Amino acid sequence: MIIVLKPHATDAEISQVIKRIESVGLMAHVSKGTERTIIGAIGDERALQEAPLEAFPFVEKVLPVLQPYKLASREFKPEGSTINVDGVLVGGQRVVVMAGPCAVEGRERLLEVARCVRAANGHMLRGGAYKPRTSPYTFQGLGEEGLKYLAEAKRETGLPIVTELMDPREAAAVYEHADLIQIGARNMQNFKLLKEVGCRRKPVLLKRGMSSTLKELLLAAEYIMSEGNYQVILCERGIRTFEDATRNTLDLSVVPLIKRLSHLPVIVDPSHGTGKRELVAPMALAAVAAGADGIMVEVHPRPEEALSDGPQALLPAAFTQLMGDLDRLAAALGRTL
Amino acid sequence: MIIVLKPHATDAEISQVIKRIESVGLMAHVSKGTERTIIGAIGDERALQEAPLEAFPFVEKVLPVLQPYKLASREFKPEGSTINVDGVLVGGQRVVVMAGPCAVEGRERLLEVARCVRAANGHMLRGGAYKPRTSPYTFQGLGEEGLKYLAEAKRETGLPIVTELMDPREAAAVYEHADLIQIGARNMQNFKLLKEVGCRRKPVLLKRGMSSTLKELLLAAEYIMSEGNYQVILCERGIRTFEDATRNTLDLSVVPLIKRLSHLPVIVDPSHGTGKRELVAPMALAAVAAGADGIMVEVHPRPEEALSDGPQALLPAAFTQLMGDLDRLAAALGRTL
Amino acid sequence: MIIVLKPHATDAEISQVIKRIESVGLMAHVSKGTERTIIGAIGDERALQEAPLEAFPFVEKVLPVLQPYKLASREFKPEGSTINVDGVLVGGQRVVVMAGPCAVEGRERLLEVARCVRAANGHMLRGGAYKPRTSPYTFQGLGEEGLKYLAEAKRETGLPIVTELMDPREAAAVYEHADLIQIGARNMQNFKLLKEVGCRRKPVLLKRGMSSTLKELLLAAEYIMSEGNYQVILCERGIRTFEDATRNTLDLSVVPLIKRLSHLPVIVDPSHGTGKRELVAPMALAAVAAGADGIMVEVHPRPEEALSDGPQALLPAAFTQLMGDLDRLAAALGRTL
Amino acid sequence: MIIVLKPHATDAEISQVIKRIESVGLMAHVSKGTERTIIGAIGDERALQEAPLEAFPFVEKVLPVLQPYKLASREFKPEGSTINVDGVLVGGQRVVVMAGPCAVEGRERLLEVARCVRAANGHMLRGGAYKPRTSPYTFQGLGEEGLKYLAEAKRETGLPIVTELMDPREAAAVYEHADLIQIGARNMQNFKLLKEVGCRRKPVLLKRGMSSTLKELLLAAEYIMSEGNYQVILCERGIRTFEDATRNTLDLSVVPLIKRLSHLPVIVDPSHGTGKRELVAPMALAAVAAGADGIMVEVHPRPEEALSDGPQALLPAAFTQLMGDLDRLAAALGRTL
Repeated sequence: MIIVLKPHATDAEISQVIKRIESVGLMAHVSKGTERTIIGAIGDERALQEAPLEAFPFVEKVLPVLQPYKLASREFKPEGSTINVDGVLVGGQRVVVMAGPCAVEGRERLLEVARCVRAANGHMLRGGAYKPRTSPYTFQGLGEEGLKYLAEAKRETGLPIVTELMDPREAAAVYEHADLIQIGARNMQNFKLLKEVGCRRKPVLLKRGMSSTLKELLLAAEYIMSEGNYQVILCERGIRTFEDATRNTLDLSVVPLIKRLSHLPVIVDPSHGTGKRELVAPMALAAVAAGADGIMVEVHPRPEEALSDGPQALLPAAFTQLMGDLDRLAAALGRTL
Repeated sequence: MIIVLKPHATDAEISQVIKRIESVGLMAHVSKGTERTIIGAIGDERALQEAPLEAFPFVEKVLPVLQPYKLASREFKPEGSTINVDGVLVGGQRVVVMAGPCAVEGRERLLEVARCVRAANGHMLRGGAYKPRTSPYTFQGLGEEGLKYLAEAKRETGLPIVTELMDPREAAAVYEHADLIQIGARNMQNFKLLKEVGCRRKPVLLKRGMSSTLKELLLAAEYIMSEGNYQVILCERGIRTFEDATRNTLDLSVVPLIKRLSHLPVIVDPSHGTGKRELVAPMALAAVAAGADGIMVEVHPRPEEALSDGPQALLPAAFTQLMGDLDRLAAALGRTL
Repeated sequence: MIIVLKPHATDAEISQVIKRIESVGLMAHVSKGTERTIIGAIGDERALQEAPLEAFPFVEKVLPVLQPYKLASREFKPEGSTINVDGVLVGGQRVVVMAGPCAVEGRERLLEVARCVRAANGHMLRGGAYKPRTSPYTFQGLGEEGLKYLAEAKRETGLPIVTELMDPREAAAVYEHADLIQIGARNMQNFKLLKEVGCRRKPVLLKRGMSSTLKELLLAAEYIMSEGNYQVILCERGIRTFEDATRNTLDLSVVPLIKRLSHLPVIVDPSHGTGKRELVAPMALAAVAAGADGIMVEVHPRPEEALSDGPQALLPAAFTQLMGDLDRLAAALGRTL
Repeated sequence: MIIVLKPHATDAEISQVIKRIESVGLMAHVSKGTERTIIGAIGDERALQEAPLEAFPFVEKVLPVLQPYKLASREFKPEGSTINVDGVLVGGQRVVVMAGPCAVEGRERLLEVARCVRAANGHMLRGGAYKPRTSPYTFQGLGEEGLKYLAEAKRETGLPIVTELMDPREAAAVYEHADLIQIGARNMQNFKLLKEVGCRRKPVLLKRGMSSTLKELLLAAEYIMSEGNYQVILCERGIRTFEDATRNTLDLSVVPLIKRLSHLPVIVDPSHGTGKRELVAPMALAAVAAGADGIMVEVHPRPEEALSDGPQALLPAAFTQLMGDLDRLAAALGRTL
């Protein structure tokens, strides 16, 4: 960590900074320049996170040298992690496809979609039983009933289930039926929920918050990992920007960047990322070309009847065609679907 | 609600839209233009929120005419609301000042700040017992112990207490000691938490999420109100933008805009809004000039020892001076402090 | 265009709106709903752009139905456009690669890069002779001397030249030597410059402004086209968002969206879009997978000596490898390089 | 400037960095930490702007210590600058008000507004003769004819004229009639135009680009000042964010921040900043409370007939009332109107 002092900082002020640095077990290294005095803190600078040097009135700015996360970093584990979701490996040579309706809307409808995902060689079934909705007047999900339909769909198709957990009080029910526990974008910084899934032992799909930086996403993963659960899959699903031609701005550049900074697998959700059905397939292909470990897409046989996010759902035929295109693309990239 | 069809939509497609509109009890009004057919849905368009017309492949776009919130709207209650926080009225002629440390760090420190707030004629004491922190390795708050110190500070100074609730499982403890329940920016769309405070009967301070639109803020208020609790105070605390010279971009324009769209009171937090001590006082004055019902600021006697957000805390002397400046400003605006 | 009136609008106010609509030759269509009166303007709503209905105090909002651009729209020309840049076709089955240094720094250096681009089968040579730089104290380009080196590089390699025009007063010199005239991101709304290239007869590469919406990009293209020059190639090069892990946020979703809304070809610049050498190749592949007509990348043999944007330049060996990867990808997508 | 090397950087690589630093006349200061080697460059780090250390593959990041602007910085001139616009001082104790129509639309209309501004004690007349418009199909300004009307309005009212320069080729005409030359937001990084007004000797009003950081705004001022013209007034007019309830997000926090970082005066334009007439007056008051040296507002007697930006124009009566409110506010702040 590097501490830049304001011009004309006195020796007494410099001493205060040195004292603070040494108080947490680090070494201070002073360098007087022509316009500023600069002090380096040598050692694990995370010790200084609790000691707000920036609050000294004579400190101009504090520049961290290291990333604030550790367990999630590539340096901590140079080879990439592979997460096993009930037999499906995420983070390896295979491109993994998670598909299904946005929300579980009923038993028959869910089974219909599950069979379609299975028939097209998808790898996991997604579907929300608890739905975070912007308005209190819209469909909020079927709750436990939805979880049971998901379990039934798994029994019939063999597809592992990914579904969202919104409230620690519902963890028992969700963990009973789900194979991959989704933390939604709005809850990426619900730290109580992160600790809850960190203490448990199933893999977690952590979606990036719509206004979260990559650093914050990796710190949210660190929350889960610091509780002992290292089975975390990251998910890019679009960020909020000024551009309103799409629902969100899908930030695919983070895919190769995550591969450099972290050992965790990363998948992409082009359905929420774009909000428009016609853009889902091209952006799914782009995500895989950028190096994603998999994709998550919404599929619905009659989107105009969907209780949530119909405009971004693929029709079954379009999903089947996407699987074919992904297959050719994966082969060209030396991977498999 | 207005539904714009794609060019060359057929009569059969037009009929499908009409049928859907009528199925929720609204009337359809068809208007064939030179390039597009447009269909208006007459009646309470909120009935169509569950019926995703945009998902029809022949629908180009859907334009809502009304705001999606109702209880929070100015139309629902043309006169402004005044919220009573244990005797302090928010939303009236008085400019209300909530002040205190970012986090409760210890008994003595808290009492010292509380006395300072009291002496400078502040109206409420703020302080976090449960702290949402970006990194798992930083101070997470004193929890229930912190709540007890807040209660003691209230007994001594008479200042009502505002503190954050992060987890429904901690509601009982927080409600025992707090007078105004804060929902933090990161939890603005934690819908389970919104419902929790909506079912209870104490006033709620709802902070705008850092990437939330004003519409989403009002919909979050609607979540609380639709459960029966109408005592909601809104808080602007800065949004996330590309500008990194400040911690957030304080969006003061929403203050007069909220006054037009909603009857709920609105306060401003220039400490989180700017993240820089030197900007807090000018932006507090600006907030009141823009029409805010009050402000919330952080005060700390030794910011360089603060366990959270030291760089944005005012020193007690600066806080006292700000109170004097606010007093003169309020008078010039025909209000009182 | 749909005009939503405020509640309780009077008949006299409704008449004012109708009169205005009819005054520009459109028909008005009034629809009184339960909460609002709505007026539709039937005909070419672009006629109303000059008549600001939103400025009436009794008008709540104005909702356009049509896109404000015409010549750039897909409806104007349903089949895609192909632009001929001195023999290289952009917008067809071939994926076009434009490569070269950020800035022309000297004769030898430029020729070295041009040969490398040629050897790897790149299609055009890029290089800035006039450089827009954020600081007045950094390298501003070689000007006309740089243009001459570009012309020499073309004579030797046969590669058409793409270079930026910043000032109408330099148009004569730039047009003498360049085959594709680049309008940079900072000048996307320099309307005088757009008109200048609109009046001339060489193809234009129009880069999206870093805070421009897709609609504004298409309106900028419309500026050029409305002067008579239809040879416009669009370029996505990243937008400015809160995410600072990359230089810009490359918004690849606009690629398939442009293909729906416009007939103009679109290429992607992953060098400026990411600002990091390691991300250029994966994002170039992703751009092509998303449907881009080509890419523009920076290549430099010794980036640490580059006078501009060294950190985002590919080394020649990396460029050659990227060309191989693009070739396989293009084949898998049914295209050629 | 501080250079952070990647882990395991070799001695040879360290030497390369040292050599580069010394080659521009600075001293290198090496500090080997537990995880990273850090190298400080001591001396005027602006010398390194041309030497892209970040492009070395073994350099992880480069952290500047100083601001990249010099002439615009508060350190360069600790007391604030006062700019004299034909007798009106900007940057002193007085709050300066510039008002007028968005565009000059005709002789009579302009004179009517000018008299109203004069009668309400406004200090300068604004009005665009050349208008940058997003669409080529909207009113583009009266050009030289508009300049002449502005000159006539000055002769009658005595108000100095502020108007926009868009093209260096129009500089002669604009300089003949204007007292304060406006560089619009879209041209803030039109560096050729900045140099043009830097070489001339009239004061410049530099508007912040809608996606420009404060640092870039100050660098744009530096462009002008480095050509010799120190008479620069900055203008905050809103930035582009995800919030669409207002036209832009008015970033008032930069006002007190500019006062710390720079000696240049700063005014605020709440008309463009909000885009909504009802928000202009509260935000004008807020701007002055935040410390702005003045405001610029649009006034129009019949906004519904305005050829540009009618929805954000104040009616004359509202402008007169705002002047009264500003007067009381200024007095409470120890200033005058």
